[in-house]
Amino acid sequence: LNAATRFSAILEGRRSISAYPEHKVRRVAQITTEVTGAIERIDAVKTGFAMADFGAWGPVIEREEERSELKYPLSYAQKGEVGAIFSPIRDGDVYPELAPIPDDPRILSNHIKSLGYFLKADAVGICELPQWAVYARDVERDPIVCDHKYAIVIISQWGYETTKASTGDDWISDSESWLSYNESAHIACTMASYIRRLGYPARGHLQTGNEHVPGYDVILTPLLVLAGLGELSRPGWALHPYLGGRFKASVVTTDLPLLPDKPIDFGLQAFCRTCKRCARHCPSRSISDADHKIDDYGYGGYRSYEFDWERCTKYRLMNQNGAYCGVCVKVCPWNKPKAWWHDIVRRSVRSAPRLDPLWVKLDEWLGYGKAHPELKWWFDLEEVDGHMRIPPRSPDNAFWQTEGTPTDEWKKLRADTTTEPRMRS
Amino acid sequence: LNAATRFSAILEGRRSISAYPEHKVRRVAQITTEVTGAIERIDAVKTGFAMADFGAWGPVIEREEERSELKYPLSYAQKGEVGAIFSPIRDGDVYPELAPIPDDPRILSNHIKSLGYFLKADAVGICELPQWAVYARDVERDPIVCDHKYAIVIISQWGYETTKASTGDDWISDSESWLSYNESAHIACTMASYIRRLGYPARGHLQTGNEHVPGYDVILTPLLVLAGLGELSRPGWALHPYLGGRFKASVVTTDLPLLPDKPIDFGLQAFCRTCKRCARHCPSRSISDADHKIDDYGYGGYRSYEFDWERCTKYRLMNQNGAYCGVCVKVCPWNKPKAWWHDIVRRSVRSAPRLDPLWVKLDEWLGYGKAHPELKWWFDLEEVDGHMRIPPRSPDNAFWQTEGTPTDEWKKLRADTTTEPRMRS
Repeated sequence: LNAATRFSAILEGRRSISAYPEHKVRRVAQITTEVTGAIERIDAVKTGFAMADFGAWGPVIEREEERSELKYPLSYAQKGEVGAIFSPIRDGDVYPELAPIPDDPRILSNHIKSLGYFLKADAVGICELPQWAVYARDVERDPIVCDHKYAIVIISQWGYETTKASTGDDWISDSESWLSYNESAHIACTMASYIRRLGYPARGHLQTGNEHVPGYDVILTPLLVLAGLGELSRPGWALHPYLGGRFKASVVTTDLPLLPDKPIDFGLQAFCRTCKRCARHCPSRSISDADHKIDDYGYGGYRSYEFDWERCTKYRLMNQNGAYCGVCVKVCPWNKPKAWWHDIVRRSVRSAPRLDPLWVKLDEWLGYGKAHPELKWWFDLEEVDGHMRIPPRSPDNAFWQTEGTPTDEWKKLRADTTTEPRMRS
Repeated sequence: LNAATRFSAILEGRRSISAYPEHKVRRVAQITTEVTGAIERIDAVKTGFAMADFGAWGPVIEREEERSELKYPLSYAQKGEVGAIFSPIRDGDVYPELAPIPDDPRILSNHIKSLGYFLKADAVGICELPQWAVYARDVERDPIVCDHKYAIVIISQWGYETTKASTGDDWISDSESWLSYNESAHIACTMASYIRRLGYPARGHLQTGNEHVPGYDVILTPLLVLAGLGELSRPGWALHPYLGGRFKASVVTTDLPLLPDKPIDFGLQAFCRTCKRCARHCPSRSISDADHKIDDYGYGGYRSYEFDWERCTKYRLMNQNGAYCGVCVKVCPWNKPKAWWHDIVRRSVRSAPRLDPLWVKLDEWLGYGKAHPELKWWFDLEEVDGHMRIPPRSPDNAFWQTEGTPTDEWKKLRADTTTEPRMRS
């Protein structure tokens, strides 16, 4: 095998350079989400956490939004301290001349993706950057300008072990997200700095955990879908064929000449129509189990499932028995680690959607989606007014059950959360 | 399996929480490196790169030390931009009261190690912090005070694929180290911040890439050995039983009550006596192939192999055909990824050292240690006086051969490097 042969195999989709066999995923000309009209640019201030932070939903939620950084000691380390260091280096000076490197976009795309995998990204995809995926104005209502041609999308997963241990909305939930935010921010900042050093403009887009510190200029979900890293799922996030939603992503926008990836179709649209497990388990009942409707939130003309993002945001902020919430990711059958037996199911979902209900049943019957308290390694802790305490209703995780056999404790929590988000007393 | 049973299994060494079966490595009461006398504290200014930076070896080496940050565009991103952001958060305010968590050091050690693995460390070990492993004075000759009781040592590997592709002293060499420096710095800073939030002092120790920016207060190699993460190898670095030297490490020192790990003995002392591959391949001939002597460098009374650290440092700085050097790590038979067939060899090395020469021969015969140019994904680039150029003697990597069949190109490079470090013309 020489370098040229290997490169052809990658280009022709006979070989993957990631840890996952992404070259086996079906590529399509159009994204599997129907776009029914013009997509308008939205303001960053119209996103859930910004709304909460700016007091649009009242002082209690505003206070909880501000407290969310301090609430759990590990989240504090991740978002309060480490999360803050990446923003200042997300953009910078461009080297004054172009480096003597090839200008073939195929070679440069392979190079940049290989760099991403070298830096331990779990998946890297490339798309053109549509202007509708750039926020119109920042939280100070100043216009955002980001007219780079391409977006490099970088996925970092969090480990399956802790996802398996967790209920999805206990004290570790927020820290899982932040592990991946910070890891993908590290990769994006390194990559952007490197590209600038080659003489091309490049900017990192990452989560800062603070509405007032610049992070993302771009909207992540459509870029993930356009870059062939996922399809739009029922709860509205991009679902990766080998990770489900068990990841966060950062982006590098740049003018380095690149070859965009094609979107993918691994059968998710039919699967989400059938499965509905996220809808049934959502503690705040934000996810609809009904069929497709037109969603008029921000993303304009996407044909997506109805999703109550206000309710979702409020639950995540007001969760008094944990830090944030990711139950939809936790219970999703797609979040599993690599295994050949899961590949059999993937093949079936792609080519025989009529078997989907069978796989969903089997998945439940095998106990996937349950919490595993025996794997729990973290402490339940909560910071309240300058004191660290054991949360009064610290869930022991034993209440977690599949919907078939709810314990009394679980029923009680569900009852609490399906009316209004629980307020702190 | 419940939580208590699982915890007992971990404590009793019947189960590993890392990705490697570390519970199967033999634990011993004493480190396998003989300590023949009192170990004196050394000054940070007496380390190789500080000597170079302070001009102890003349203006050419001083200039190359300063240029090393700018030399290769990816290294620049990693150490010039990203590497600089961790130092300011390596220490900080301690939460004013202790968190309501158990004070059992066994539970806390398991918790902290689990946190390390959650944050994607490849190995985590704990030891008491001996004061001789703390630098006496920093580069400004001010005394360093670090009297925490424990050191948590965190290993991040770099990928095998690029190690396999590389010669070990080409343009990607420095970037491999920096991937692991930055990743382990991210983990150490997150962990230290979390521990401070629990009410205990904690400080991260990490590579900053700048002699004038505080990074490590502690000397890494002895801590890796004491924490049971490796044995001292022929070239003087700690060798991990499942990663060889294909990693970098960061440290968290703290007063959180912890249970130290025991040192390990996987048969390396006999193996290094036999193998000598690093010594034969070292382009600067810094590594001795002779038997043990007493080394009087810094680490005082360690019984280690003779090692010309000045020569090593100079070669790494003066390397005109690459960025730094890690040939000893590249050719080491211990750097391989996980596989059951390598486990067979590990078992043999541990229990039947007389077979070591056989394994070394087999390893060479199978072609391990060679470069694989077909896997090369990076560009050879060099920044010289404000211009980015293709290095004039850009190695095509084809020269890399096992010592048995040196090409003319390889012989020439060896000839260059075995007299004096090559100077830029």
